[in-house]
Amino acid sequence: MARVVVDVMLKSEILDPQGEAVLGALPRLGVNNVKSVRIGKRVEIEFDDAETAAAVEEQSQIIADRLLANPVIENFTVSVPGEDAA
Amino acid sequence: MARVVVDVMLKSEILDPQGEAVLGALPRLGVNNVKSVRIGKRVEIEFDDAETAAAVEEQSQIIADRLLANPVIENFTVSVPGEDAA
Repeated sequence: MARVVVDVMLKSEILDPQGEAVLGALPRLGVNNVKSVRIGKRVEIEFDDAETAAAVEEQSQIIADRLLANPVIENFTVSVPGEDAA
Repeated sequence: MARVVVDVMLKSEILDPQGEAVLGALPRLGVNNVKSVRIGKRVEIEFDDAETAAAVEEQSQIIADRLLANPVIENFTVSVPGEDAA
Protein backbone atom coordinates (compact mmCIF):
# COMPACT_ATOMS: atom_id res chain seq x y z
CA MET A 1 0.00 0.00 0.00
CA ALA A 2 1.57 3.25 -1.13
CA ARG A 3 0.35 5.34 1.77
CA VAL A 4 2.68 7.30 4.03
CA VAL A 5 2.07 9.34 7.16
CA VAL A 6 4.29 12.29 8.02
CA ASP A 7 3.98 13.63 11.56
CA VAL A 8 5.34 17.11 12.13
CA MET A 9 5.73 18.29 15.73
CA LEU A 10 7.29 21.39 17.24
CA LYS A 11 10.64 20.63 18.88
CA SER A 12 10.31 20.13 22.62
CA GLU A 13 12.18 23.34 23.43
CA ILE A 14 9.77 25.42 21.33
CA LEU A 15 6.74 26.91 23.09
CA ASP A 16 3.44 25.51 21.80
CA PRO A 17 0.71 28.09 22.51
CA GLN A 18 -2.00 25.99 20.85
CA GLY A 19 -1.19 23.06 23.13
CA GLU A 20 -1.07 25.36 26.15
CA ALA A 21 -4.53 26.68 25.27
CA VAL A 22 -5.94 23.16 25.14
CA LEU A 23 -4.21 22.30 28.41
CA GLY A 24 -5.78 25.35 30.02
CA ALA A 25 -9.24 24.34 28.82
CA LEU A 26 -9.12 20.77 30.16
CA PRO A 27 -10.27 21.53 33.74
CA ARG A 28 -13.54 22.79 32.26
CA LEU A 29 -14.09 19.24 30.97
CA GLY A 30 -13.34 17.84 34.41
CA VAL A 31 -9.90 16.59 33.38
CA ASN A 32 -7.23 17.59 35.90
CA ASN A 33 -4.50 14.99 35.48
CA VAL A 34 -2.84 16.04 32.23
CA LYS A 35 0.74 17.25 32.37
CA SER A 36 1.24 18.50 28.84
CA VAL A 37 -0.42 18.84 25.46
CA ARG A 38 1.53 19.31 22.23
CA ILE A 39 -0.19 19.90 18.91
CA GLY A 40 1.35 19.24 15.52
CA LYS A 41 0.42 18.23 12.01
CA ARG A 42 -0.40 14.83 10.58
CA VAL A 43 -0.05 14.56 6.82
CA GLU A 44 -1.31 11.54 4.91
CA ILE A 45 0.27 11.13 1.47
CA GLU A 46 -1.06 8.65 -1.05
CA PHE A 47 1.31 7.62 -3.83
CA ASP A 48 0.56 5.87 -7.09
CA ASP A 49 0.43 2.15 -6.53
CA ALA A 50 3.18 1.52 -9.06
CA GLU A 51 5.84 3.08 -6.82
CA THR A 52 8.35 0.90 -4.99
CA ALA A 53 8.55 1.14 -1.20
CA ALA A 54 12.06 2.58 -1.41
CA ALA A 55 11.04 5.35 -3.82
CA VAL A 56 8.01 6.21 -1.69
CA GLU A 57 10.17 6.42 1.42
CA GLU A 58 12.76 8.60 -0.27
CA GLN A 59 10.25 10.98 -1.81
CA SER A 60 8.34 11.25 1.48
CA GLN A 61 11.53 12.32 3.21
CA ILE A 62 12.08 15.01 0.56
CA ILE A 63 8.49 16.26 0.82
CA ALA A 64 8.60 16.36 4.62
CA ASP A 65 11.97 18.04 4.81
CA ARG A 66 11.47 20.67 2.12
CA LEU A 67 7.75 21.36 2.19
CA LEU A 68 5.97 20.17 5.33
CA ALA A 69 8.34 20.87 8.20
CA ASN A 70 10.36 23.90 9.20
CA PRO A 71 13.57 22.22 10.40
CA VAL A 72 14.47 25.20 12.58
CA ILE A 73 11.54 24.64 14.94
CA GLU A 74 9.99 21.31 13.93
CA ASN A 75 10.85 17.61 13.85
CA PHE A 76 9.17 15.15 11.54
CA THR A 77 8.78 11.40 11.33
CA VAL A 78 7.82 9.41 8.24
CA SER A 79 5.97 6.16 8.80
CA VAL A 80 3.98 3.63 6.84
CA PRO A 81 0.67 2.81 8.56
CA GLY A 82 0.47 -0.78 9.70
CA GLU A 83 4.22 -1.25 9.51
CA ASP A 84 5.57 1.29 11.96
CA ALA A 85 3.93 2.76 15.05
CA ALA A 86 4.19 6.43 15.96
CA MET B 1 3.69 5.26 29.96
CA ALA B 2 0.73 7.63 30.23
CA ARG B 3 1.10 9.14 26.80
CA VAL B 4 -1.70 9.24 24.27
CA VAL B 5 -1.83 10.42 20.67
CA VAL B 6 -5.03 11.80 19.19
CA ASP B 7 -5.10 12.12 15.40
CA VAL B 8 -7.77 14.40 14.00
CA MET B 9 -8.40 14.27 10.25
CA LEU B 10 -11.03 15.87 8.05
CA LYS B 11 -13.63 13.36 6.89
CA SER B 12 -12.88 12.05 3.42
CA GLU B 13 -15.89 13.81 1.87
CA ILE B 14 -14.74 17.20 3.19
CA LEU B 15 -12.53 19.30 0.91
CA ASP B 16 -9.03 19.84 2.33
CA PRO B 17 -7.61 23.03 0.77
CA GLN B 18 -4.39 22.82 2.77
CA GLY B 19 -3.73 19.34 1.43
CA GLU B 20 -4.62 20.46 -2.08
CA ALA B 21 -2.11 23.30 -1.82
CA VAL B 22 0.64 20.88 -0.82
CA LEU B 23 -0.35 18.52 -3.63
CA GLY B 24 -0.13 21.40 -6.10
CA ALA B 25 3.35 22.31 -4.89
CA LEU B 26 4.83 18.82 -5.20
CA PRO B 27 5.78 18.99 -8.91
CA ARG B 28 8.11 21.87 -8.04
CA LEU B 29 10.03 19.39 -5.88
CA GLY B 30 10.17 16.92 -8.75
CA VAL B 31 7.52 14.66 -7.22
CA ASN B 32 4.85 13.70 -9.75
CA ASN B 33 3.46 10.43 -8.47
CA VAL B 34 1.31 11.51 -5.53
CA LYS B 35 -2.44 10.99 -5.77
CA SER B 36 -3.63 12.83 -2.69
CA VAL B 37 -2.49 14.72 0.37
CA ARG B 38 -4.65 15.18 3.48
CA ILE B 39 -3.56 17.33 6.39
CA GLY B 40 -4.87 17.01 9.92
CA LYS B 41 -3.82 17.48 13.52
CA ARG B 42 -1.72 15.28 15.74
CA VAL B 43 -2.16 15.92 19.47
CA GLU B 44 0.16 14.36 22.04
CA ILE B 45 -1.32 14.27 25.54
CA GLU B 46 0.79 13.37 28.55
CA PHE B 47 -1.08 12.22 31.63
CA ASP B 48 0.14 11.92 35.21
CA ASP B 49 1.90 8.60 35.66
CA ALA B 50 -0.48 7.58 38.43
CA GLU B 51 -3.40 7.18 36.02
CA THR B 52 -4.63 3.74 35.00
CA ALA B 53 -4.69 2.84 31.32
CA ALA B 54 -8.49 2.64 31.34
CA ALA B 55 -8.88 6.12 32.85
CA VAL B 56 -6.39 7.57 30.38
CA GLU B 57 -8.23 6.00 27.47
CA GLU B 58 -11.61 7.24 28.68
CA GLN B 59 -10.45 10.79 29.34
CA SER B 60 -8.64 10.94 26.01
CA GLN B 61 -11.86 10.02 24.24
CA ILE B 62 -13.67 12.83 26.10
CA ILE B 63 -10.95 15.37 25.29
CA ALA B 64 -10.86 14.38 21.62
CA ASP B 65 -14.60 14.36 21.19
CA ARG B 66 -15.43 17.56 23.03
CA LEU B 67 -12.36 19.73 22.56
CA LEU B 68 -10.06 18.61 19.74
CA ALA B 69 -12.33 17.42 16.94
CA ASN B 70 -15.36 18.91 15.29
CA PRO B 71 -17.48 15.79 14.80
CA VAL B 72 -19.42 17.38 11.95
CA ILE B 73 -16.40 17.50 9.66
CA GLU B 74 -13.64 15.55 11.42
CA ASN B 75 -12.86 12.02 12.55
CA PHE B 76 -10.43 11.24 15.34
CA THR B 77 -8.49 8.21 16.52
CA VAL B 78 -6.98 7.74 19.96
CA SER B 79 -3.88 5.57 20.18
CA VAL B 80 -1.13 4.76 22.63
CA PRO B 81 2.32 4.98 20.97
CA GLY B 82 4.12 1.67 20.83
CA GLU B 83 0.93 -0.28 21.38
CA ASP B 84 -1.21 0.64 18.41
CA ALA B 85 -0.12 1.80 14.98
CA ALA B 86 -1.90 4.53 13.05
